[in-house]
Amino acid sequence: MSEKKTALVISAHAADFVWRAGGAIAKHQSLGYDVTVVCLSYGERGESAKLWKESGMTLDRVKAARRTEAENAAAALGVSDIRFMDLGDYPLILEREDKYKLVDIIREVQPRFMMSHSNYDPYNTDHMYTTSIALEARMIAQAWGHNPGEKVLGAPQLYLFEPHQTEQMGWKPDTFLDITDVWDKKRAAIECMEGQEHLWAYYTNVAENRGNHFRRNSGGQSGGRNARYAEGFQSVFPRTVDEL
Amino acid sequence: MSEKKTALVISAHAADFVWRAGGAIAKHQSLGYDVTVVCLSYGERGESAKLWKESGMTLDRVKAARRTEAENAAAALGVSDIRFMDLGDYPLILEREDKYKLVDIIREVQPRFMMSHSNYDPYNTDHMYTTSIALEARMIAQAWGHNPGEKVLGAPQLYLFEPHQTEQMGWKPDTFLDITDVWDKKRAAIECMEGQEHLWAYYTNVAENRGNHFRRNSGGQSGGRNARYAEGFQSVFPRTVDEL
Amino acid sequence: MSEKKTALVISAHAADFVWRAGGAIAKHQSLGYDVTVVCLSYGERGESAKLWKESGMTLDRVKAARRTEAENAAAALGVSDIRFMDLGDYPLILEREDKYKLVDIIREVQPRFMMSHSNYDPYNTDHMYTTSIALEARMIAQAWGHNPGEKVLGAPQLYLFEPHQTEQMGWKPDTFLDITDVWDKKRAAIECMEGQEHLWAYYTNVAENRGNHFRRNSGGQSGGRNARYAEGFQSVFPRTVDEL
Amino acid sequence: MSEKKTALVISAHAADFVWRAGGAIAKHQSLGYDVTVVCLSYGERGESAKLWKESGMTLDRVKAARRTEAENAAAALGVSDIRFMDLGDYPLILEREDKYKLVDIIREVQPRFMMSHSNYDPYNTDHMYTTSIALEARMIAQAWGHNPGEKVLGAPQLYLFEPHQTEQMGWKPDTFLDITDVWDKKRAAIECMEGQEHLWAYYTNVAENRGNHFRRNSGGQSGGRNARYAEGFQSVFPRTVDEL
Amino acid sequence: MSEKKTALVISAHAADFVWRAGGAIAKHQSLGYDVTVVCLSYGERGESAKLWKESGMTLDRVKAARRTEAENAAAALGVSDIRFMDLGDYPLILEREDKYKLVDIIREVQPRFMMSHSNYDPYNTDHMYTTSIALEARMIAQAWGHNPGEKVLGAPQLYLFEPHQTEQMGWKPDTFLDITDVWDKKRAAIECMEGQEHLWAYYTNVAENRGNHFRRNSGGQSGGRNARYAEGFQSVFPRTVDEL
Amino acid sequence: MSEKKTALVISAHAADFVWRAGGAIAKHQSLGYDVTVVCLSYGERGESAKLWKESGMTLDRVKAARRTEAENAAAALGVSDIRFMDLGDYPLILEREDKYKLVDIIREVQPRFMMSHSNYDPYNTDHMYTTSIALEARMIAQAWGHNPGEKVLGAPQLYLFEPHQTEQMGWKPDTFLDITDVWDKKRAAIECMEGQEHLWAYYTNVAENRGNHFRRNSGGQSGGRNARYAEGFQSVFPRTVDEL
Repeated sequence: MSEKKTALVISAHAADFVWRAGGAIAKHQSLGYDVTVVCLSYGERGESAKLWKESGMTLDRVKAARRTEAENAAAALGVSDIRFMDLGDYPLILEREDKYKLVDIIREVQPRFMMSHSNYDPYNTDHMYTTSIALEARMIAQAWGHNPGEKVLGAPQLYLFEPHQTEQMGWKPDTFLDITDVWDKKRAAIECMEGQEHLWAYYTNVAENRGNHFRRNSGGQSGGRNARYAEGFQSVFPRTVDEL
Repeated sequence: MSEKKTALVISAHAADFVWRAGGAIAKHQSLGYDVTVVCLSYGERGESAKLWKESGMTLDRVKAARRTEAENAAAALGVSDIRFMDLGDYPLILEREDKYKLVDIIREVQPRFMMSHSNYDPYNTDHMYTTSIALEARMIAQAWGHNPGEKVLGAPQLYLFEPHQTEQMGWKPDTFLDITDVWDKKRAAIECMEGQEHLWAYYTNVAENRGNHFRRNSGGQSGGRNARYAEGFQSVFPRTVDEL
Repeated sequence: MSEKKTALVISAHAADFVWRAGGAIAKHQSLGYDVTVVCLSYGERGESAKLWKESGMTLDRVKAARRTEAENAAAALGVSDIRFMDLGDYPLILEREDKYKLVDIIREVQPRFMMSHSNYDPYNTDHMYTTSIALEARMIAQAWGHNPGEKVLGAPQLYLFEPHQTEQMGWKPDTFLDITDVWDKKRAAIECMEGQEHLWAYYTNVAENRGNHFRRNSGGQSGGRNARYAEGFQSVFPRTVDEL
Repeated sequence: MSEKKTALVISAHAADFVWRAGGAIAKHQSLGYDVTVVCLSYGERGESAKLWKESGMTLDRVKAARRTEAENAAAALGVSDIRFMDLGDYPLILEREDKYKLVDIIREVQPRFMMSHSNYDPYNTDHMYTTSIALEARMIAQAWGHNPGEKVLGAPQLYLFEPHQTEQMGWKPDTFLDITDVWDKKRAAIECMEGQEHLWAYYTNVAENRGNHFRRNSGGQSGGRNARYAEGFQSVFPRTVDEL
Repeated sequence: MSEKKTALVISAHAADFVWRAGGAIAKHQSLGYDVTVVCLSYGERGESAKLWKESGMTLDRVKAARRTEAENAAAALGVSDIRFMDLGDYPLILEREDKYKLVDIIREVQPRFMMSHSNYDPYNTDHMYTTSIALEARMIAQAWGHNPGEKVLGAPQLYLFEPHQTEQMGWKPDTFLDITDVWDKKRAAIECMEGQEHLWAYYTNVAENRGNHFRRNSGGQSGGRNARYAEGFQSVFPRTVDEL
Repeated sequence: MSEKKTALVISAHAADFVWRAGGAIAKHQSLGYDVTVVCLSYGERGESAKLWKESGMTLDRVKAARRTEAENAAAALGVSDIRFMDLGDYPLILEREDKYKLVDIIREVQPRFMMSHSNYDPYNTDHMYTTSIALEARMIAQAWGHNPGEKVLGAPQLYLFEPHQTEQMGWKPDTFLDITDVWDKKRAAIECMEGQEHLWAYYTNVAENRGNHFRRNSGGQSGGRNARYAEGFQSVFPRTVDEL
């Protein structure tokens, strides 16, 4: 594991990391982590309805607008390292060389943990495709025969962040992170997403209710921690510990 | 949560805690925990085949022998607090008053975490029944209206320890505990189980192979911790954390 | 099926029907249904922490307070028929005769649909027990040999209403009901639950976010209905239709 | 395992064994097995609608009629050993002593395989209850300390026979049995069920379509066996073999 | 949603829509829907065994024969709009441009509901591949940035029609459609499938038994509708309703 | 089905067949089967860490070393027919023509049963990809229109052999094969894997513990066969039998 504390978030579209992991990103930045966010696409075709309703809109203008929003959100979260792979969306497709570029980033970052989407999403096949790519790239990054001589990847956890309509995705959180002290940053990042204002209140509600779940699971009315905002994550791999 | 570090293991039959959680028990005792083991029955009817093959065997003699084995194993693990509820096995049945006695113990111990069997076991219905009772008793212990004035229970994790034939039980470990430095104690406890010598090698194999899983998930060939023995657990409830 | 439009909600504790199905109840009352709510217990031991923290509290006083709250909430929802079986909670247990009383109610009401809790709930075994009882009582009510001569039950749907921490319960909604026009009633009913004020905002958030899910699934940004509040339900049985 | 080839079918209600396992019973009788059928109840309350619609019907007359039908069906299948435990239905409940009587039968029969209902059935809780009892009784029958001195049970397979509306029950067959050469016997047994004539064609269709599944899985259009009628079963336990 | 009532059926091979959704197609045509059937391939390599057993057969002759059969079946069902994409089978593969052609059709039709295969099929990977493509194409059709200016798709339900050997596919119907009044049309369409005469009786049995399931779930012996033939469907997405 | 008894093992990387199915291979060779092993890749990039740690290593030298090890292991198991498709690993990708080559092998071998990896493996996406390819190739091999005139495939079982960390893969064995009398051969084959000596003890433990599972399921302490070593397999398709 790297001396430096690092984390890597792989986001199918430019805005996903904000709604789903903005708190975890800000929190870990504040804990001294360097968090790298990779946006595989801008969500320019499928997640920019408001922009496309403007007259004279072009693909390049949508991409530029989405990029600016994502950069602003990243800045609000305290992230300096955000990368855009511009691979296209609806559908998102990675060829072998695209996968290798993602592997390069993983090896460069050497993350303590990774994050991506839920395993299943019938509404948005780009999301579940991204998770399958995250697992494949993680595996390649661990291969001693891939670019021999480079530092291979260890075994970082892959956390699946919260999808929209969790139950439809079969997503079940096993970890709640208290984000109370960075909530202002997450809310600020959310407000950078001007094209999706209809979701600001939605994800504020999510954060409040996940705070309730945090309290329930840390002791409830018998003295649970008073977390007011939280985020939930599903772990792909088991944990290895010295104390339960 | 209690100032004192405590844990509670609920075992359907007298020997279950040894094979399935002996390492975790010894480890947490060595970390300063007080671990309480509750054996709901001695396994006198259903898990004492070797004794019953002796001539002139009686139920009381089987119970006494099983109790002695369990006490010896507990001692080998460093546990001073083992309790026998003597509720009968094959089938194990708890009436309301029996459940309340178990609730009394839970409230007395105020465990930081609890342990019991897998959720499903078609070979041994006592095992899955015990887990359903553990959940019910945990719930009653949290009720402010049960024996008002007593200290209610917080929200301790319930870890499901490893069943025999894990895949048939639908049991999936999400946590591996390194038990290398207490392995000698677990092996000594295992050897107290004279009536089930055919399982000594079996659970030694399990511990070695779970050690491999620990290494795999803590970094594998890229620098994972060299745990030689481990135990696996499945969590029922999500964790609440400040750092992923 | 009954000429009269009727529905039956089976609630483990006195408050459950408010948080989980208050919108559906008010909505169907406004559609001309007679909705009957059955509270198997008052939740007097396990769901009345705030009351038990008062000095000099007794079981009877808790029950009375909880009953009043539930009656007020029912009135706010427009329900005239609420029944309290007073069977005790934490744990809730129905003997054969208790089940038969529930069957009597089912046959009397002849509901077009029934409602109860999720199939699984490790936090609250009373909840999942209630669902198993609902299925058993529904089956008995269909038996021609149970109190022969009575009108037997048809095959009403059993909707499972939304549990707390849905993903932990394995609950997946397949039906969203628009409750926008009765939201004021549900909110008023929620505010009758004085002992659980910490949940008012929580379930308001739930209703708003389920409204988002309604919009997503009825057309999204391409013209979905502008439902602002909704409730979700999981069906146990398949639907029978003349048009998809 | 017994020298004698024996099998045991545990049926919640008097007619279940006919529709669901009649072919397997007749087939194994013809292969030299002694098949014992245990009907825990007559299905007198819940599965005798046609009888109850007759005027002046009584519980005893229903039971007698159901018993006669079941005996006739057993005879048609070539079964000489059918037992009625008369434990009541809707709901079916076994007390400890009732379970021990079932254990006595299991030990007496020493079956090479057992059969019972699906693990889940929201339409009919008696069915899934019977399966849980079958597992519990099998476990007790294996206990050396239950009636010491008796021959304990080995490890017979428990096959779950086909429920009505298989997909709703989560039942998945892993074994198809060719019943072509005993189909006439099964059809004759089916026709003994005069009270449920509406199901004769239904289960004939099932047998024909399971025959298609047999052919598909034994080679399909590339030379599969020409089974015309079959039954499907789900195994609870893994098989132990010397050749795949 | 379109003013005109429309539906779209996506069939991997030329005959699938007949066996699995013929009733729904005829029924909705009779209800005033325009149903479009898209056959991604003819099933020329993998589902035309009978033709290939004839001497001198060629791929083109097989395709022509399959096309004629499918057109005749469509006519029997009252469908005027059937389209053949001729993409090849065993394996079926869609390149990006092929997907876009399918998206064009979806947008042209603007279906109120869509239909395709089960999510899983180990016997026939073309089937499950088709479902994954249906979800992907539905997503692209909803993207405002895909061919900007075109009318984007709303959120139509995707019904998964009945696979062969339902339990092996993990397919669970949640909706039964009464097809009694169009059964003659479905049977006529089935008889157009001259190459698969061995399946005529099979799918007649299925329709009869699904009729039984319809009756069971609409009231059973207590007055359920007397549907004689039905089809079952599994919904991918939740429903949005104003009344339960 | 072929007169000759044949079997086909499809292994993602060169060593997989040894750890996971070496006993089954040796056993069936000893039973008169001709077993063909197909290695899709050498595991040269991702499963050869030890080799890559040597200085001056090249891809060709790794491949050659891995091939030699696999050939030696095959010889130890008594297999004469091992084939290397050399398709690359981490990631393994088969183009259409590669799939057709695999189909050619399947048709040439006409196996009574096939073997491959688990359905899911988040650690190693090559493994689950191989299983999806095995199903696709099996389907193509059954198509009468693929290379018309060739002998088409029947319906051989696909057994999924034991993955590493079984519970994480959702793999559940339904069949245990006694490999006691060929254990020496499997151990010898294991020892050919010089690059993975850390796994020798691991898979010896597995074989011993699967032997325990064999005994448990063939009668346990009541007279089960004394198998000392076994392998477990999960069947994809149902069995067709004449006797249960």
